Amino acid sequence: MGKVPVENNDTEGKKNEFSLVRIKSTWKRKLGMKAKMNTTDHVSAAKIYESIEETGTSWTVVSPIVFTYKVTEAQNLLDPCNDTLLLGHITDPQQVEDMKKSSKPLKRFVVVDQEVFKIYGSKLTEYLEANNVLYKILALPTTEENKSMEMALKIIEEVNTFSLDRRREPIIAMGGGVCLDIVGLAASLYRRRTPYIRVPTTLLSYIDASVGAKTGVNFANCKNKLGAYIPPTAVFLDLSFIKTIPRRHISNGLAEMLKMALMKHRGLFELLEEHGQMLLDTKFQADNSRYGHNHIQAASQATRIAITTMLEELAPNLWEDDLNRLVDFGHLISPALEMKVLPSLLHGEAVNIDMSYMVYVSQESGLLTEEEKQRIIRCMVGLELPVWHEACAMELIQKSLQDRLKHSGGLFRMPLPVGLGQADIFNNTSNEILHRAYEKWCDELSVSSDSNCDPSPARIPTLHQF
Amino acid sequence: MGKVPVENNDTEGKKNEFSLVRIKSTWKRKLGMKAKMNTTDHVSAAKIYESIEETGTSWTVVSPIVFTYKVTEAQNLLDPCNDTLLLGHITDPQQVEDMKKSSKPLKRFVVVDQEVFKIYGSKLTEYLEANNVLYKILALPTTEENKSMEMALKIIEEVNTFSLDRRREPIIAMGGGVCLDIVGLAASLYRRRTPYIRVPTTLLSYIDASVGAKTGVNFANCKNKLGAYIPPTAVFLDLSFIKTIPRRHISNGLAEMLKMALMKHRGLFELLEEHGQMLLDTKFQADNSRYGHNHIQAASQATRIAITTMLEELAPNLWEDDLNRLVDFGHLISPALEMKVLPSLLHGEAVNIDMSYMVYVSQESGLLTEEEKQRIIRCMVGLELPVWHEACAMELIQKSLQDRLKHSGGLFRMPLPVGLGQADIFNNTSNEILHRAYEKWCDELSVSSDSNCDPSPARIPTLHQF
Ligand SMILES: NC(=O)c1ccc[n+]([C@@H]2O[C@H](COP(=O)([O-])OP(=O)(O)OC[C@H]3O[C@@H](n4cnc5c(N)ncnc54)[C@H](O)[C@@H]3O)[C@@H](O)[C@H]2O)c1
Ligand SMILES: NC(=O)c1ccc[n+]([C@@H]2O[C@H](COP(=O)([O-])OP(=O)(O)OC[C@H]3O[C@@H](n4cnc5c(N)ncnc54)[C@H](O)[C@@H]3O)[C@@H](O)[C@H]2O)c1
Ligand SMILES: [Zn+2]
Ligand SMILES: [Zn+2]
Repeated sequence: MGKVPVENNDTEGKKNEFSLVRIKSTWKRKLGMKAKMNTTDHVSAAKIYESIEETGTSWTVVSPIVFTYKVTEAQNLLDPCNDTLLLGHITDPQQVEDMKKSSKPLKRFVVVDQEVFKIYGSKLTEYLEANNVLYKILALPTTEENKSMEMALKIIEEVNTFSLDRRREPIIAMGGGVCLDIVGLAASLYRRRTPYIRVPTTLLSYIDASVGAKTGVNFANCKNKLGAYIPPTAVFLDLSFIKTIPRRHISNGLAEMLKMALMKHRGLFELLEEHGQMLLDTKFQADNSRYGHNHIQAASQATRIAITTMLEELAPNLWEDDLNRLVDFGHLISPALEMKVLPSLLHGEAVNIDMSYMVYVSQESGLLTEEEKQRIIRCMVGLELPVWHEACAMELIQKSLQDRLKHSGGLFRMPLPVGLGQADIFNNTSNEILHRAYEKWCDELSVSSDSNCDPSPARIPTLHQF
Repeated sequence: MGKVPVENNDTEGKKNEFSLVRIKSTWKRKLGMKAKMNTTDHVSAAKIYESIEETGTSWTVVSPIVFTYKVTEAQNLLDPCNDTLLLGHITDPQQVEDMKKSSKPLKRFVVVDQEVFKIYGSKLTEYLEANNVLYKILALPTTEENKSMEMALKIIEEVNTFSLDRRREPIIAMGGGVCLDIVGLAASLYRRRTPYIRVPTTLLSYIDASVGAKTGVNFANCKNKLGAYIPPTAVFLDLSFIKTIPRRHISNGLAEMLKMALMKHRGLFELLEEHGQMLLDTKFQADNSRYGHNHIQAASQATRIAITTMLEELAPNLWEDDLNRLVDFGHLISPALEMKVLPSLLHGEAVNIDMSYMVYVSQESGLLTEEEKQRIIRCMVGLELPVWHEACAMELIQKSLQDRLKHSGGLFRMPLPVGLGQADIFNNTSNEILHRAYEKWCDELSVSSDSNCDPSPARIPTLHQF
């Protein structure tokens, strides 16, 4: 998939290229592009190649599907006067006008994380009521443990009962990455694709789980083993949801921001280094009087850079056909670690432990200086992220990398930082380096056996310790 | 989805177009296409549009995914000397050579319809053994009643246990449309997309269920309510499987061929008219001595035209974004009918009853002459297909058309034959015409109340009756 076939010039058979032209309601294939076509003809971007062999005819179909979706920063999404949530996904201004004028009420199915519903449920209900929407709100315990096909099917059942016009009435998902991932999969399956909208309410989903095409659920104890690559119609980003998430979950999201910083953007790294604590304290809210304007800007700057860099990497590789992916940094060992200790580590925490180890691999490979390494680890600690975990044993690392090899066409494709805010992909990191890095990593960051006062097996050294 | 956004020229905000260029492992966005790029730069087909509004930044991602798949006529697919089933999906000849030379055995997971396994299981096993394949054959009762997400998940579980390299070891599905649809969905979900190969063993799946992108399972008593649009890597067509399917299932497949004939190809219609009985008698096999060469050619001609016309309509509309679809002929009323009387009507039979009624609508609308109508119905009868069913009441027809309206953006988009082998799409067929056509249809084709000798509620008049 994803590759256009090369013209076949050998003697076995002639290969004919057909374009497809629509005349009234009927598609007709026409040989080559030389075929005379009227300017009013509708010509498809698809092609059919036909070759006639001794054993029969063979057709190759090449058909591009164009995905278009919007990621939009929005303020006061649940303000009854703001119609973004209801109409913001529509690209045709005329259609928006028509809908505003129409007396026909809108119909929306909303799936909300149960915890989010506890906090924002009444606001959401008021919003929908005020806008005269025919709605159904389904509040679900969308936790990592419940992230399963069963829950996706439960959502589909309710959607089916509610009955939507799948062309015009997108399903709305509101919650963290778990909620968005499950609803995205449910919508992608229902009638082979029903549009959906993502409203992220955690920092992690705001800057990461929202902006790409991936959906998924866990299966057979494996992270996101089942899923689809179907982007939402629109993503509406409202930072104000973040103010109610626990501090630990801010750190969680900061891990994915740090990933983009380390891979692509030194400026973002320095922002996180300088303002990390402030971002944790203010929870990315601009109305905190303890901090000056300068600090305040850091929140929107950091999220915007994180999203821009993320989109840069995702847009050209929406279906992950290219296996060389910088966004995989922190995601080589963490899936196994995360599932192994579930629910004790959050996604971003597991990612950070993976990144922390990889920083040691980088330094051991001569790609980072000792000083750069220390600066990165110090930044992680400043973001209150664990940098080591006892369950992250060398066997787990090796098994994960072997798995990677298997599913990445025989190459490791290991993204590693090369200096601060730059990276490349490596295939030949030796076993020796992996081991040396592991030892150093444990030496420097593991909880020393005598400090039994720390109940957490995940290591977060205090800033002054490091 | 599927539409490129129009440039926004109003005063609200400036919209910047970014191209995406890969430099080493990193994607960078560059403003416009004017940006100076080196010829060695890898430029993506994707774009990012950024607009800065008062309320924040908005990004629009436009990213095309190109699907490529092969539909190949193959003979003696299970002959141990024929490597099509194992290597025929690979487009790069070098890779085929490498695999042939390699001593590493191939690994294949094969899902087979249980009935097909009873007949072809030992041949399949011998084939895989002879080719030194590490294999697992999963024989399943893939019936319409079992066409569910549960069965898809069961397949996924087994695939997961077997452990495949999802980049290089496609899942093989062998059976009728039910088997191909379920396996296609399972493969599409597993790891967000695992390549799969279709080997159709019924006539219906040979000319229809195999050649497009659709996969699916039934849900909440609705046909194919859940599914995906992910084409297989390859389809291998071997007519010899057809020789063991029951005569009724030949008729079943002929219904979908007749659909293509009525919509697009008068020549195919005349072939079916002339050779229908022979095709039923010989089951599309060339080695039947009762019929001369002239007749024999009809089998390969008819299947080839059916596939070519089908591909013509499917390739430009792989994801069914365009709602005006000739291939929907016979599929407006039949889904409800098929599910209502399950399992008494086969898919093609329900389709034919739908088409039969629509032919009356066409004639009543002045699009077909009385003579053409009769010729079509006579052809259907010759193909031993039911042309009327008592469960196909006017209420069911109207409910189906209302449903259609709802899911087709407010228009009926009714494909109707206009003469023989041509069609167009209509939105304004009046209720009166629908009713008049229904009455005439029942008058002329329903089983008369006194002929209680016919136990079947589906009407198949004998040829001389009509
Ligand atoms: N699709 C993708 O591209 C992608 C990318 C990254 C991560 N993910 C997935 O995202 C998931 C992690 O997402 P997450 O970290 O958002 O976890 P989450 O969805 O479990 O949410 C974390 C917790 O915060 C609560 N919560 C959510 N919003 C809140 C709010 N505004 N106020 C108070 N509490 C709130 C939730 O109830 C939950 O307990 C993982 O399953 C991961 O696989 C997906
Ligand atoms: N994906 C698509 O685009 C598409 C298109 C058309 C139909 N379909 C689906 O296809 C299904 C119908 O397909 P079908 O008609 O092939 O039905 P099917 O898969 O149920 O097969 C029909 C019967 O034939 C048996 N059988 C299969 N191959 C045989 C062989 N070679 N010899 C003897 N017996 C054999 C099967 O066991 C079964 O009993 C429906 O579910 C329909 O929704 C899908
Ligand atoms: Zn992640
Ligand atoms: Zn059909």
